[in-house]
Amino acid sequence: MDQLSEERRKAQFDVDDMKIVWAGSRHNFEVSDRMAKLVASDPAFRKDTRTMLARKELFKNTLRKAAYAWKRIVELRLSEEEASKLRFYVDEPAFTDLHWGMFVPAIKGQGTEEQQQKWLPLAYKMKIIGCYAQTELGHGSNVQGLETTATFDHQTDEFVIHSPTLTSSKWWPGGLGKASTHAVVYARLITDDQDQGIHGFIVQLRNLEDHLPLPGITVGDIGMKFGNGAYNTMDNGVLRFDHVRIPRSHMLMRVLQVTREGKCTQSDVPRQLVYGTMVYVRQAIVADASCALSRAVCIATRYSAVRRQFGSQNGGPETQVIDYKTQQNRLFPLLASAYAFRFVGEWLNWLYTDVTQRLQANDFSTLPEAHACTAGLKSLTTTATADGIEECRKLCGGHGYLCSSGLPELFAVYVPACTYEGDNTVLLLQVARFLIKTVSQLGSGKKPVGTISYMGRVEHLMQCRSDTQRAEDWLKPSAIVEAFEARATRMSVACAQKLSKFSNPEEGFAELSADLVEAAVAHCQLIVVSKFIEKLLQEIPGKGVKQQLEALCNIYALFLLHKYQGDFLATGCITPKQASLANDQLRSLYSQVRPNAIALVDAFNHTDHFLGSILGCYDGNVYPKLYEAAWKDPLNDSVVPDGYHEYIRPLLKQELRTARL
Amino acid sequence: MDQLSEERRKAQFDVDDMKIVWAGSRHNFEVSDRMAKLVASDPAFRKDTRTMLARKELFKNTLRKAAYAWKRIVELRLSEEEASKLRFYVDEPAFTDLHWGMFVPAIKGQGTEEQQQKWLPLAYKMKIIGCYAQTELGHGSNVQGLETTATFDHQTDEFVIHSPTLTSSKWWPGGLGKASTHAVVYARLITDDQDQGIHGFIVQLRNLEDHLPLPGITVGDIGMKFGNGAYNTMDNGVLRFDHVRIPRSHMLMRVLQVTREGKCTQSDVPRQLVYGTMVYVRQAIVADASCALSRAVCIATRYSAVRRQFGSQNGGPETQVIDYKTQQNRLFPLLASAYAFRFVGEWLNWLYTDVTQRLQANDFSTLPEAHACTAGLKSLTTTATADGIEECRKLCGGHGYLCSSGLPELFAVYVPACTYEGDNTVLLLQVARFLIKTVSQLGSGKKPVGTISYMGRVEHLMQCRSDTQRAEDWLKPSAIVEAFEARATRMSVACAQKLSKFSNPEEGFAELSADLVEAAVAHCQLIVVSKFIEKLLQEIPGKGVKQQLEALCNIYALFLLHKYQGDFLATGCITPKQASLANDQLRSLYSQVRPNAIALVDAFNHTDHFLGSILGCYDGNVYPKLYEAAWKDPLNDSVVPDGYHEYIRPLLKQELRTARL
Repeated sequence: MDQLSEERRKAQFDVDDMKIVWAGSRHNFEVSDRMAKLVASDPAFRKDTRTMLARKELFKNTLRKAAYAWKRIVELRLSEEEASKLRFYVDEPAFTDLHWGMFVPAIKGQGTEEQQQKWLPLAYKMKIIGCYAQTELGHGSNVQGLETTATFDHQTDEFVIHSPTLTSSKWWPGGLGKASTHAVVYARLITDDQDQGIHGFIVQLRNLEDHLPLPGITVGDIGMKFGNGAYNTMDNGVLRFDHVRIPRSHMLMRVLQVTREGKCTQSDVPRQLVYGTMVYVRQAIVADASCALSRAVCIATRYSAVRRQFGSQNGGPETQVIDYKTQQNRLFPLLASAYAFRFVGEWLNWLYTDVTQRLQANDFSTLPEAHACTAGLKSLTTTATADGIEECRKLCGGHGYLCSSGLPELFAVYVPACTYEGDNTVLLLQVARFLIKTVSQLGSGKKPVGTISYMGRVEHLMQCRSDTQRAEDWLKPSAIVEAFEARATRMSVACAQKLSKFSNPEEGFAELSADLVEAAVAHCQLIVVSKFIEKLLQEIPGKGVKQQLEALCNIYALFLLHKYQGDFLATGCITPKQASLANDQLRSLYSQVRPNAIALVDAFNHTDHFLGSILGCYDGNVYPKLYEAAWKDPLNDSVVPDGYHEYIRPLLKQELRTARL
Repeated sequence: MDQLSEERRKAQFDVDDMKIVWAGSRHNFEVSDRMAKLVASDPAFRKDTRTMLARKELFKNTLRKAAYAWKRIVELRLSEEEASKLRFYVDEPAFTDLHWGMFVPAIKGQGTEEQQQKWLPLAYKMKIIGCYAQTELGHGSNVQGLETTATFDHQTDEFVIHSPTLTSSKWWPGGLGKASTHAVVYARLITDDQDQGIHGFIVQLRNLEDHLPLPGITVGDIGMKFGNGAYNTMDNGVLRFDHVRIPRSHMLMRVLQVTREGKCTQSDVPRQLVYGTMVYVRQAIVADASCALSRAVCIATRYSAVRRQFGSQNGGPETQVIDYKTQQNRLFPLLASAYAFRFVGEWLNWLYTDVTQRLQANDFSTLPEAHACTAGLKSLTTTATADGIEECRKLCGGHGYLCSSGLPELFAVYVPACTYEGDNTVLLLQVARFLIKTVSQLGSGKKPVGTISYMGRVEHLMQCRSDTQRAEDWLKPSAIVEAFEARATRMSVACAQKLSKFSNPEEGFAELSADLVEAAVAHCQLIVVSKFIEKLLQEIPGKGVKQQLEALCNIYALFLLHKYQGDFLATGCITPKQASLANDQLRSLYSQVRPNAIALVDAFNHTDHFLGSILGCYDGNVYPKLYEAAWKDPLNDSVVPDGYHEYIRPLLKQELRTARL
């Protein structure tokens, strides 16, 4: 019995067509759909008891799933694309993520042809398991501060890998603690007492026969992390080296070589290649953000339609929570954000191809812009997603606090994205540096390109005034884009002007960093808004699909305009009256989206398995399922709890004085 | 070795005096300090392995701690105040919280003299364990929607308690699942087929001899909740009644009586008494908010002083993270908020006394204002604290994600405060109703009182303009208060004007609810700012103490002014130039607080046990402690993990095809 069928009937667009738009293409949709269903229909991949498992059981179960997934991938002869999707839908962080996502790419990107030929076949068959050991106990964001050393020994033609201090212990690498046999270790290369900077080395950690750590290696798990289940399925590790020797050939030498004589020589491979990888990783993070946010929004939207509270008239049913404007005002902008991040992620995918092609042609001209743009979008989308998941949890009221809602685990497993691959505030400061540099070059005739090209119209943007006069005027893409461009330009220029008053620019940058971060956010929001609008310039087939996306695009933009109205007003881009009109328009957009809300989250095509949420189940049969799930908690194994005889009974019987506690 | 001694030397005020200010009085400080140390020094109360325990072990351990705490309370003949503090410092949600915090007060507040004489002695000695069973699976915020029935049976002089539907199952009550023998159950009273509304009934749930549920009662735990440890130490329960009979005398009859004939009669006890309880509960929640936030801020501040990242010059140490303005801009407003909430909580405590005295004198005139004010402050402080804890976690970088940082558990255990005792958005709508009513009565000659009295100066506040001209002008309390008053007034008045255009006021209220919530927030922020400023009008002894508090008060106010500058600008209370000056002043306040930051968190007087955080430990020896703690994870019991032989080895040896997975 589908409790939400009435809601589904209300939709004014074709959900199947929207599913294709969301997936990016019919091909993407079909592969995803097939892999999602393969996982969902196989009991071996069940995850509904995950949040109740103690650490050891949990980890052992992950090892089982990872092995089983690999077995199925081999049996079904899945393509690389399919295999990667299958792992994605297993939806459980595991050592294989790092093996495939970091270890293999590191060898591909930084290893010589010879090294690739040696190591990749082993890795592809999983005859070895690898991880990526960069961060240290005392060193996260600042890679140049790493302390682990790799000292070249002329006599033996080896590197000696060593952890000279406690803070140099490798700390955090996923898969390192218990599963990996090998690691790409980042260490400070030292030849003839000369510090040659940080480089990667392939180090075997464990014996391939009995999995015991090799001599000189101390390795273990770093302990429990945030949340039930969540990242505790992963063996994030600690690793110390006591003068561990590896052959010289184990240094990844695509860019820098160390010869038998210990001399360092640069290859002609451009160092900028590393930026291609960075763009790739960040576009993947943005895609993940839209997916994670879509899961939370799907759960909260469905449950908001099921849940009723207050407003009963004449003994009738109470009001569906989704009909309250306060609920819509918190939920629908997140729904719109999920779509917005999806499309900006799609565009980043294009950017990756573009950057790669240019790098191959030795064209480095777009790199600074691509770097700033991906850094900013990684920061913006992950922050908004982490906050959005928690907001969705709150929108589910008390029941959102139950693990069976799926939201606590989704939050706990997602939040590290705000910190890894560049702390979100550090990244925004990098964007700000790029903005300030761009402003400083505006007079020089150097034209800003790509996402920053709007600054080429700085004169117009510094003095333009929005001409919106009625609420509907805010539906015009040109009105929105100009307001966002003017705001971003003016905030950057204002920062640049303030900076110019400092005699020491670095001191000025440090002093004004909070303002600079705000300017960076304004620039990044503009990118997301613009890319959404550009998407809508494309032909989008399907009954009513484009209309829905237009409404969501407007909600995304006008919600930001309201939330950040301080920026728009302080810079004089819009008047208080215009801000108020935008808000009026936003309210009426909510009414427009309301009947389509359930269909808009159905378009994500999430299986009940993938969602892992009783509140978000497709059929909306929330209460019977919550009730049944409760009884599966280990605490309900017995009616009288463990500990009754030792602790409750002596309390009630006033016999505590003699009880052993 | 105190890694933070250098930081402590920098302080420009007397920490011991600040401790007294934070605690509220020397007496409070001494009791708290004694109880905190008593708990911290007793190994029976250790909590450092809590996040690793599976549910059953975890719960059993909580039962042990609760029994042991009670034993110590009796042995040491602790006063009620001391006992309550001791339980607080044990810092582990347990059934005893509900027994003392809800069950006993419900009987005291709603029971007749006779009922109190019967039940309280049993409860005081813990010969029975009680909980508070109100919310149901399908009914949270809306108490009037509860479905459980209590039908009077004339023949037997009993009530029949029954759960007519699945959604009427009691759901969430703490202590209900496994520990409680009794409950105050809220049910719809039915006499002679007449619905008499929701009332409380004392129902025995379990046999006092063997702890088995009584006939007709189905009871259990509702399952895992957000986070490691956290609220999973609590047996939040589910409860169904199948025509359970209780004597008529078990209905709590202080306000409404049911006679032997089944007639309902009101007593002369004023119904408004319930508001006194409500004010009490909410002031406790606000006090908890300041405490929870202070713990997170203490951890993040100490670790920000220990942690170094980037900025190394000539091979010297890197820069302390706390010296970055971006860090200060996120951390110091939270430090200021902790103090702000502490003082507004102190004032609410006074308000509770005031309301109680008025109720006893049958003066109900201040109730609406007290209701709105406590509702709003509960909402504002719990939302800010939940967000603030997570922000502090992010401010600790990757290590904040480890359970050993203490922050994940602090967050998970805190967030329910945003939902229980009134969902935060629902509460703000109540505040908004009060604001709109106040505005509508402004012309009537009825003077607004208490925290809303500023609206009496509506004419001035609607047209005044801030006269700040230099950054320092924003240090004047009068400048701050007037800006906040003008903003709150104008937002309320604007809402009232928009509402007046609707022919149906309720429809208008629903349509404009998002704007109304914003007006309510503006009003509540004004209250917190005003009460902080009022606190500083008192004499505050101690070298430099008042100066520090003045800086924090200004940081709190100017941070809000910046964050919500959209409100201030849209309503024309300040100009963009003035907003920018306020922000300049804010930056220089950060520099002023910086050398005092560690001492300002030391003033909270949190023991290492209570903080439960390696990152926040008093001596700052973070890295050696993190390293040691890691090895205690169960996963490190063996170097080769459980599951290696079943899952990793067959994978590496390419023998998965025949493996059992």
